[in-house]
Amino acid sequence: MQFIFFVIKLSLFIYLTSFIAIAETTPLVIKQRFETENFKTFNQQEIKKVAVGWESYGKLNANKDNAILITHYFSANSHAAGKYSEDDPQAGYWDNLIGPNKAIDTNKYFVISVDSLANLGVYNEHVITTGPATLNPDTDKPYGLTFPVVTIRDFVNIQKLVLESLGIEKLHTVIGASMGSMQAIDWAATYPKWVPRMISVIGNAQTDAWTTALIERWTIPIKLDPAWNNGDYYDQTPPTEGLIAALMFITQDALTPEFINEVGGSSSVNHRPLEAKSLASILDSHRIVQWLRTRATTRAKTFDANHLLYLARASQLFIAGHKNNLNKSLSEIKAKTLFLPSANDLLLMPYLSVEAHQSLKELGKTSELETLTGNLGHLNGVSAITEKALKIKNFIEQ
Amino acid sequence: MQFIFFVIKLSLFIYLTSFIAIAETTPLVIKQRFETENFKTFNQQEIKKVAVGWESYGKLNANKDNAILITHYFSANSHAAGKYSEDDPQAGYWDNLIGPNKAIDTNKYFVISVDSLANLGVYNEHVITTGPATLNPDTDKPYGLTFPVVTIRDFVNIQKLVLESLGIEKLHTVIGASMGSMQAIDWAATYPKWVPRMISVIGNAQTDAWTTALIERWTIPIKLDPAWNNGDYYDQTPPTEGLIAALMFITQDALTPEFINEVGGSSSVNHRPLEAKSLASILDSHRIVQWLRTRATTRAKTFDANHLLYLARASQLFIAGHKNNLNKSLSEIKAKTLFLPSANDLLLMPYLSVEAHQSLKELGKTSELETLTGNLGHLNGVSAITEKALKIKNFIEQ
Repeated sequence: MQFIFFVIKLSLFIYLTSFIAIAETTPLVIKQRFETENFKTFNQQEIKKVAVGWESYGKLNANKDNAILITHYFSANSHAAGKYSEDDPQAGYWDNLIGPNKAIDTNKYFVISVDSLANLGVYNEHVITTGPATLNPDTDKPYGLTFPVVTIRDFVNIQKLVLESLGIEKLHTVIGASMGSMQAIDWAATYPKWVPRMISVIGNAQTDAWTTALIERWTIPIKLDPAWNNGDYYDQTPPTEGLIAALMFITQDALTPEFINEVGGSSSVNHRPLEAKSLASILDSHRIVQWLRTRATTRAKTFDANHLLYLARASQLFIAGHKNNLNKSLSEIKAKTLFLPSANDLLLMPYLSVEAHQSLKELGKTSELETLTGNLGHLNGVSAITEKALKIKNFIEQ
Repeated sequence: MQFIFFVIKLSLFIYLTSFIAIAETTPLVIKQRFETENFKTFNQQEIKKVAVGWESYGKLNANKDNAILITHYFSANSHAAGKYSEDDPQAGYWDNLIGPNKAIDTNKYFVISVDSLANLGVYNEHVITTGPATLNPDTDKPYGLTFPVVTIRDFVNIQKLVLESLGIEKLHTVIGASMGSMQAIDWAATYPKWVPRMISVIGNAQTDAWTTALIERWTIPIKLDPAWNNGDYYDQTPPTEGLIAALMFITQDALTPEFINEVGGSSSVNHRPLEAKSLASILDSHRIVQWLRTRATTRAKTFDANHLLYLARASQLFIAGHKNNLNKSLSEIKAKTLFLPSANDLLLMPYLSVEAHQSLKELGKTSELETLTGNLGHLNGVSAITEKALKIKNFIEQ
């Protein structure tokens, strides 16, 4: 969150307030807890006890048909909007989009989000999750790598249980960014009767070979860190260096040359000079590397390395519907769909949204696509989302 | 070389032969050795004994004014053209460009290339280099990290010594791809009287903050590998896993989604199915990852991990002229220049060539820019170079 805050501050384009929002006190939110037992994963393993956190904004109506599900991205959790206290320095990541009179209007809708399994921020006091760092009730020790591989479908199925526990039987809309977009379209393909509207932000309909290899790069430094110890480190020093490296990679993948060069002070006109320390010692590093490392070090404090491996695998395995035939799964979708790729996204490149959108059109579905244009690449899906606030509002309300 | 061979085979666009070349027996080449003593590096350190390999194709004329210098890329060496023996399976990397009656015509020109310091392929029998893996004559042990940081300028200065040892006082042309482009433009900026023509392929005029951070990613897995041992591993097991990871990263950075997805069998129509092994075990990996790993493992056999760190640092520190004012250095250039970026290059992105070209134009220099359009991204600078064979021929001969 601190990092994103910094990004927003530095960005050339500041979208701090939705242009359709009316200034108002941010409502306070609380993290709630959902538990279930004997949860069967997509790969047919059983997790004896599952607990996840969830948040909601706005009120569920009597018909229970005004629920909008927000599915969160890789390094996020269910804190999509609002603040936990009056003096909370940072609201949820899409607070510009979600709130009273905002594009996703909490005066009209019951907006809900659920922490993923194997959530990255397991040591964040506001996250409740179940993953490799969780105590296995059979052994009273953390699962480590004995935790089953979980998929985007498992996140969806947990969300469905949370919704059903509230008496909800159908969503108004599902919307998510990045890994959240995977959940959103998997919802639409797997439970089509639940989903009349689906919005995919900086998303895809399957993780292609290129993106699979890109995501693998986040896992490699963790596995190389000797402290990783094959995932068994919960009673000793954790693989923090590997985790920091992974987060440095993720940060760069989520940004753009334009932004990083602004931070690093290099351009054709005002280039950066030779750096004396890097010239003097092979063990020193350039300032931009130190910038990335400092931010990653802060973020690593609440993150778990094994959880990162599991989220990476869920993202790599993703194909909407989780069947071997993508078009068959897409043909099941009843939702009207809206894709919002970011033009300069280097992580989930725009062609992924274009392909998904075109496949749906070819299947006779109602699909729209509009492109985010900020200078933040993948992060436009978070920091520049209000570029499309009016589009989202109209899509939801029609 | 095997990797590049594979790439060429699989590529949609096969540029195996120059369209202006006349089929002819590839001439045999030999690696020659150059030695010098008390070489002073750009950062004011001394290397007591330096040895590098070099190759040449064609004949130096009586005036010694027909020399074309080829400066090589990161994972290459001076083997730019020709074969070492009749049954050599693979010619030098630009053999399509360099040879009798080819764009760089060895019937007219004396074409020469020199192995870099800290050359990556130190265990390749055809490479002669001096770097961290070399025995320090003062200690009779490998330098390891006591080897000084070397720069692109140092590679240039060694090349100049090699040329001078042959009685050459001026080049006809300098041309290089990628890290070779850095050497080419540094030549033009530092020794302007030597360089009337400079061709930068998939290049830049400075390594910006974005690219510096990207290159750093190659070094991180090596440093995380416990076998790296702070660079002191020459009498024990080397950090092969870290080196393999670095080479996997480099391979992906040098390619494109289009190409990798063709290899991995994923597209919107013919997508890849869920992979059972990756779904079953967090320790297994996807096929595209195994493909990258297999190739990297083969390449790692002749490469040294410390050498990779030093080449990465040289590339990160690069700014044409190696002064703190790029425009001042560029203003020294007397050469006419030609930039050949690759449209879909994700490593040295086309904006880098565009910026260099525009800066030169603004300084009143004669500069041209044309764009390579293959599907191989950065690797177009090697595999698709014959797209611009005629352009290169005309640029050189006018």
